[in-house]
Amino acid sequence: MDWGLEAERRLIEIARCSMSQVGVTRLPFTAEHAAANAVIGDWMGQAGLAMHLDAAGTLVGCKRGPAGAPTLLMGSHQDSVRNGGRYDGIMGVALPCLALQKLAAEGVALPYSVEVLAFADEEGVRFPTALVGSRALAGTVDPAVFDLTDRDGIRMGDALDAFGGDAANVARIACDPAGILGFLETHIEQGPVLEREDLPVGIVTSICGIERNAVRFTGETGHAGTVPMPGRKDALVAAGRFISAIHDEAAQNADLRATVGSLALHPDVVNAIPDRVNLTLEIRAPEDADRADFAAWARVEGEKIAAQAGLGFVMDRTYVQEAVPCSPALRDTLARAAHSNAGRAVLLPSGATHDASAMADLCPVGMVFVRCRDGKSHSPAEFASAADMGVAVEVLADCLRALAP
Amino acid sequence: MDWGLEAERRLIEIARCSMSQVGVTRLPFTAEHAAANAVIGDWMGQAGLAMHLDAAGTLVGCKRGPAGAPTLLMGSHQDSVRNGGRYDGIMGVALPCLALQKLAAEGVALPYSVEVLAFADEEGVRFPTALVGSRALAGTVDPAVFDLTDRDGIRMGDALDAFGGDAANVARIACDPAGILGFLETHIEQGPVLEREDLPVGIVTSICGIERNAVRFTGETGHAGTVPMPGRKDALVAAGRFISAIHDEAAQNADLRATVGSLALHPDVVNAIPDRVNLTLEIRAPEDADRADFAAWARVEGEKIAAQAGLGFVMDRTYVQEAVPCSPALRDTLARAAHSNAGRAVLLPSGATHDASAMADLCPVGMVFVRCRDGKSHSPAEFASAADMGVAVEVLADCLRALAP
Repeated sequence: MDWGLEAERRLIEIARCSMSQVGVTRLPFTAEHAAANAVIGDWMGQAGLAMHLDAAGTLVGCKRGPAGAPTLLMGSHQDSVRNGGRYDGIMGVALPCLALQKLAAEGVALPYSVEVLAFADEEGVRFPTALVGSRALAGTVDPAVFDLTDRDGIRMGDALDAFGGDAANVARIACDPAGILGFLETHIEQGPVLEREDLPVGIVTSICGIERNAVRFTGETGHAGTVPMPGRKDALVAAGRFISAIHDEAAQNADLRATVGSLALHPDVVNAIPDRVNLTLEIRAPEDADRADFAAWARVEGEKIAAQAGLGFVMDRTYVQEAVPCSPALRDTLARAAHSNAGRAVLLPSGATHDASAMADLCPVGMVFVRCRDGKSHSPAEFASAADMGVAVEVLADCLRALAP
Repeated sequence: MDWGLEAERRLIEIARCSMSQVGVTRLPFTAEHAAANAVIGDWMGQAGLAMHLDAAGTLVGCKRGPAGAPTLLMGSHQDSVRNGGRYDGIMGVALPCLALQKLAAEGVALPYSVEVLAFADEEGVRFPTALVGSRALAGTVDPAVFDLTDRDGIRMGDALDAFGGDAANVARIACDPAGILGFLETHIEQGPVLEREDLPVGIVTSICGIERNAVRFTGETGHAGTVPMPGRKDALVAAGRFISAIHDEAAQNADLRATVGSLALHPDVVNAIPDRVNLTLEIRAPEDADRADFAAWARVEGEKIAAQAGLGFVMDRTYVQEAVPCSPALRDTLARAAHSNAGRAVLLPSGATHDASAMADLCPVGMVFVRCRDGKSHSPAEFASAADMGVAVEVLADCLRALAP
């Protein structure tokens, strides 16, 4: 069996479980989700796993190990964004099934139990929440989320129950950490690093912490013709200096990302000096201390730029999510497997959030990234090659072989 | 008579001819315009002027000089923006009336004819055109403008005719340049220069030329977490560098103004790298060559910034209006009058367009600026003091005394 070609065949097949013709649109607790679970059930069956749907709507495939042995969890999410791609999430369900099928074909009996998890919802597209399946296992679901409604007014709890879940009893499926060996997630990189490194896979060091800040520069408007340049309190000029300084400073730290993604100005007319600019500053870093240091630097820099032109400056943190370090033991085991299958192991942070972020509250987590074309994701153009997925299956299988209870 | 206090009294009185309670809203060919013309007629009468409404709706007050003598034109516009102030435009009608009244009270007989002009429309708020009264005298009105309609669908030609004008015969009121000595306009500065100089009045050197450019930076979007800083093609970072460079370079030339007033970015979300920024670059300068040089510099700078990050850059000129130099003779006569009444004469360009811009096609033009508080105009907060207006009346009277046919 060519495991990479088989992965490609399976991902093309399951991509048909989509609400949209363009790209993949598969939302939790829908007909497309049910159709996808039927396909995944077939994958699990071929890997020798026994299936059930848990209370949070996660399709679970289990293979019991020796009595009393702990369980290694693997998997990712079945759902997609609207008009997304064929790989994000679902590849992390397909490849562990193939790795287990490969080991079974080779007659390998693992000294621990394994479960492959196909989480219902990680993207948070249908309901204004996300990660419900992984949070349920970690015991961190807020029961209030089941009262959230989709755009048609359907409660998440009702949608889950109708799908075969059991919202009222989600708290009961929280795992006992003592019985869990760890969680392994496989995901497309969603960035250009592996492509630049010319490597099929990479091993994640940490899932970056994220903070978002609302930044405002306040100056004075005036007629673009009558107010001389010296003495202007132009909020957009100050914002321009800030945006380029943020970029240049962030580029000094290889793992840090700082992005001004959204900006609005007032009065926003051709012949008036802007008196107000609101912008967003998002900072991500694998180390929370680096993120905090950068935010502090950005605040001082913004204040300095504003003061030089007599402007007001405000920077308010509107959101924060701490970094999730991957388990050193899982990371090293994965890196050894990557080294032997790809000749070289690259360690890189994950800039995006994943199910592993929530699973880290339960157990050690490890992540394998698979190279994707042009760094593209959340798009019909998302692509990972059969050859690269084949290497990822080998890396997973080697890692499973190396792990001990 | 305290001419400054009388000017203030008159401007407070005529400000009541307004559609709005907040600020002044007086649009051409309306009941408020008619009420204002009745007040202006009274001012003209007190100055010994004979009145008529011309075909373009301009209220004209004439005082004949010796037979065969040329005519000096003075004035400005009666209309305001919506919720504008008490000074913009109308002050340039009130002060010449007072200057003539003062000269008459002193028994001065000028050796030339004078006309005070209260133009119907300079702001272009009601109809999508402007400067119809001054263009009519200069013989530069496009007859097509009379077919333009206001937001109620009323044709400008019909509104003018109903007001007592004669749209069909506007071409006939074009003046013979041979009979015109010049045009003097008095206006609030609409900027902070005189306030900074601590002077009540200033003399205009030139009405700045204006050009507007549509600028676009095009890069590549990507996930704000997964794309490392080096290699990003962030259109907003490039725009930020461009905006601050534009400001700093323009500040090297005292009379040049360069403003990025409007900006839009795509996709404009907190966690995506911006791939497209569109912005406006307006450049104003009293010398067209300086403006052209700056635009050429801006284009090279934008191309350089874009090339450094592998972005696309486009800069298209969307509008241009050439500079209008004031007459050196009128400027020098006004400057001498300013010097003797304010101790010092400051020469400054006008960054905004005025009726004098259109009148320059007919005859030499000169302009007096009156200091305004905080540089504010087009706002209820617009303010010029009685004392400063008093100095402006003296400057106009001295200038009129000094001019020879």
